Amino acid sequence: MAMENYRHFLFFLITSILIGFLSILFVLIWVFQWREGLAWDGGLAEFNWHPVLTVTGFIFIQGIAIVVYRLPWTWKCSKLMMKFIHAGLHTVAFVLAVISLVAVFDFHNYKSIPNMYSLHSWIGLMGVVFYTLQLVLGLCIFLFPMTPAFIRAAFMPIHVYSGLLIFGTVIATALMGITEKLFFALKNPAYKDSPPEAVFINTLGLLIVVFGGTVLWMVTRPSWKRPGEEASTFKQDGRVSSVTENELNLNSFDKATMESSSEPWKRKLKLEETGLRSTM
Amino acid sequence: MAMENYRHFLFFLITSILIGFLSILFVLIWVFQWREGLAWDGGLAEFNWHPVLTVTGFIFIQGIAIVVYRLPWTWKCSKLMMKFIHAGLHTVAFVLAVISLVAVFDFHNYKSIPNMYSLHSWIGLMGVVFYTLQLVLGLCIFLFPMTPAFIRAAFMPIHVYSGLLIFGTVIATALMGITEKLFFALKNPAYKDSPPEAVFINTLGLLIVVFGGTVLWMVTRPSWKRPGEEASTFKQDGRVSSVTENELNLNSFDKATMESSSEPWKRKLKLEETGLRSTM
Repeated sequence: MAMENYRHFLFFLITSILIGFLSILFVLIWVFQWREGLAWDGGLAEFNWHPVLTVTGFIFIQGIAIVVYRLPWTWKCSKLMMKFIHAGLHTVAFVLAVISLVAVFDFHNYKSIPNMYSLHSWIGLMGVVFYTLQLVLGLCIFLFPMTPAFIRAAFMPIHVYSGLLIFGTVIATALMGITEKLFFALKNPAYKDSPPEAVFINTLGLLIVVFGGTVLWMVTRPSWKRPGEEASTFKQDGRVSSVTENELNLNSFDKATMESSSEPWKRKLKLEETGLRSTM
Repeated sequence: MAMENYRHFLFFLITSILIGFLSILFVLIWVFQWREGLAWDGGLAEFNWHPVLTVTGFIFIQGIAIVVYRLPWTWKCSKLMMKFIHAGLHTVAFVLAVISLVAVFDFHNYKSIPNMYSLHSWIGLMGVVFYTLQLVLGLCIFLFPMTPAFIRAAFMPIHVYSGLLIFGTVIATALMGITEKLFFALKNPAYKDSPPEAVFINTLGLLIVVFGGTVLWMVTRPSWKRPGEEASTFKQDGRVSSVTENELNLNSFDKATMESSSEPWKRKLKLEETGLRSTM
């Protein structure tokens, strides 16, 4: 049964990665097959970096960064190392998101198109601002060695909630972006005539929604959570130390399950089976 | 501290309801102040039922239906009654969503505009189809008296996950709808010239996102969950009976907390404070 739970996770992970890759493939085929390709020339080929980098970085890499703690084969790695991988992937996603923003502002300015008038631009910029805040606060609270454990513990639910909300909002923004772009770009035949390009890019929109759905399923299953183990941290003198979760004021239930089981897949399975413990 | 937790919940609930009402007010001001008002005449005034009923039913009422188990003053009501209220509100939302779809199809057909070509329409129709499925499965599994308790328990995490995913997807669809409509409707001045109507409706889009965010925050806080009490159900002979959650194979931790505390606000507070138990 533990193995079956593991297989379920693998199924969702592989589906998620395949759909993510397919989304990136779709956006590349789109810009090279139907649009102006990629360049940095102030024209439409520069604009095209915007969807390419958004799908690659702000959606796919962000999704992988969110899910990375749940990969069972990383559970033997230290929490600190996983935090660096999590933060590193989010930083890559952030950099690609910023370049994708520069591309679209540069294109608008070159073509004298106003910036920041559409709902897509409003919510998209808010997404980038909150993502920046999330990254900076995450680094300060979970990686900065001086931050006390109780602050980390208190901030964790907010970090998880806002991370998933931002991820969902970025996907919604991409769907608005696709909508805008297809109305702008398709003229003869128009979007309403459903040319192959329209159907192809609507399908990209569906793929992005399914990718988001699989990521959100994986990160909200209690039995797929990284086991509560020693959380590595730094002491004030800079040496690596560790805080056990007992010190983070864990309740007796979690302590008991942590101590009693070396099989995390089995450990929380019973909870998930009852279905009554799901807080999502 | 229990009272403080209660106050936090009330703050989010009131904020959420105010923002929900403000969204409905915004969409009504929009159609009456800037657009053609409301009518059932095959014209744009008929189309206007689409945003009005979507925001009112498919977003606001759906959001309230999702959150209704978490209202502390309902915890003394039977679970069965709360299920009827939950299902009833979702049914109202469903009916309004269907009428809003009929309005837009009717308008398209009257004006010979193609149906179902945009990403908004694809994802929106998928949202309605999955919402229907969610409603029918929810009724069969959680209200139909013959369904065994273990099926209810096994299906619960899927029901919660798909409910929240559909809710988020409906909001994303509304944002795409706003994007489409403003590009269609604003011609001179155009959307890109940011006339007051554009700013007003972009603001409606932000309000909808914030409404969704507050609902998702409320329903994913472990300490705001309805206490695990006797779950009323029917016996096969039709008489109302009750299944205690012990019978649903609850683990010893939940049994212990249920038995030990009559103060649900206090009961799970410690878990939330540690932040480590959040599965969202």
